[in-house]
Amino acid sequence: MRQQESSVALLASNVRFEVKIVPLRSLSPGSRLSEEQPVMADKSLFEFLHMEMVAYVYKHQNGDNNNQERGSSLSTLEGMGFRVGQGLIERFTKDTPSFKDDLDVVKFLCKDLWINLFRKQIDNLRTNHQGTYVLQDNKFSLLTQFSNSKQYMEEAPKYLAYTCGMVRGALSNLGIDSVVTAEVSVMPACKFQVVIQRS
Amino acid sequence: MRQQESSVALLASNVRFEVKIVPLRSLSPGSRLSEEQPVMADKSLFEFLHMEMVAYVYKHQNGDNNNQERGSSLSTLEGMGFRVGQGLIERFTKDTPSFKDDLDVVKFLCKDLWINLFRKQIDNLRTNHQGTYVLQDNKFSLLTQFSNSKQYMEEAPKYLAYTCGMVRGALSNLGIDSVVTAEVSVMPACKFQVVIQRS
Repeated sequence: MRQQESSVALLASNVRFEVKIVPLRSLSPGSRLSEEQPVMADKSLFEFLHMEMVAYVYKHQNGDNNNQERGSSLSTLEGMGFRVGQGLIERFTKDTPSFKDDLDVVKFLCKDLWINLFRKQIDNLRTNHQGTYVLQDNKFSLLTQFSNSKQYMEEAPKYLAYTCGMVRGALSNLGIDSVVTAEVSVMPACKFQVVIQRS
Repeated sequence: MRQQESSVALLASNVRFEVKIVPLRSLSPGSRLSEEQPVMADKSLFEFLHMEMVAYVYKHQNGDNNNQERGSSLSTLEGMGFRVGQGLIERFTKDTPSFKDDLDVVKFLCKDLWINLFRKQIDNLRTNHQGTYVLQDNKFSLLTQFSNSKQYMEEAPKYLAYTCGMVRGALSNLGIDSVVTAEVSVMPACKFQVVIQRS
C-alpha cells in the first residue's frame, strides 16, 4: 500500500497530492457487471472504431482521389479484415470439432461467427453446390447508421471491404482459398458472395 | 421469391447457378444466439481491429521513424479515440441522470463506461480532490496479450493512446476539458491520469 501511494505521488509530482481512495466496490443497482459475459463488449466500441479506421485509411491514401487510389484503400481495409478474420476464427474454432465439408464451414460462419461478431446470424444462405455461396444479411451491423440514399449507396463498398476480408481470412485459416465480394441493393441489407477457389 | 432468385443469378452470372436455400434456422444447441444481449459483440473483434489500426497508423506515418513522427502517430491514435469517446458517451449517458460533480463523472467512467467497453471496472481510483484523478486497471484489456518484457514496455504507449483519447473525448462531451496520460509499470496493469483543466 505504501508503495502504491509513492508511485502515484511520482506520477503527479507537480501536484500537491493528498491520496484518497474512492470506494469503487459499491456498484449502483443500475450498473451492469460483466462477470457472466466475460468475452463481450459493447458493439458500438467496434462500430465507432471501424468508422474511424475507414475514414483514416481514405484520408491518407486518397490525396488525389483517383480510381487507383480508391482501389488501394479498399484493398488496405480488406487486408486488415483478412488478418483479423484469421485471428478470430482460431479463437472461435478452438473447441469446435472438425468440419465435414466446405458447406459445413460456411454454415459455421453464418451462424457462430456472425452471431459472435454482429449479434445475429446471416438471414439467408444460398449455394450452387459448385463452390459459390451467397450470404445475405438483411440488417448488416456496419450499415445500419446509413440512410438509403444514392449518396450513401456509392460509399457502401468502403464499409464492406473490411468484412469481406474478415470472411476471406476466416476461410483461409480453415484451409479454403476464396474470393469474397459484397453488394448492397437496399440499405442496410447486404449480400456477401463467396467463390471458393479450387487449386 | 422469384425476384430474389433472379438477383442471385445476376450476381453470379458466370456460374451455372442452381439456387438452393440452405436452412439456417436449426441452430445446433452449442450455438449462442444473442437475443438476450442485443448490443454486445465478442471483445476480440475490437481488440484485433485495434491492433491492426495501431500497426497501420505506425506503418504509414513512421517512414523515417524519428521522434516527431512517433509523436504524430500517437496523436493520430489519440484523436481517433477522442472522437470515439465522444460518440460512446452520448450513447451511454442517454438514460443517466445528470452528474453532480466531476468526481461523479469520473466514477461513471470507472464503472459503467469501463464495464461496457472492457468488461471490468477500474480497480482503483485516486484523487487529490483538486482535479487530478488516477484510474488504475490491474489487467487492462488491450495489454493482456503482451508479455512483461522490456521490449513490449517500450511499445506500450502505442496501445494506450487510443484509450487516453477515448477517456478525454468522453469527458469533453460531458463538458470537462482534460489532459489524459497513461503509464505502465508492470504489464498488463496500467494507470490513466486525468488532469482536469480549469478555464
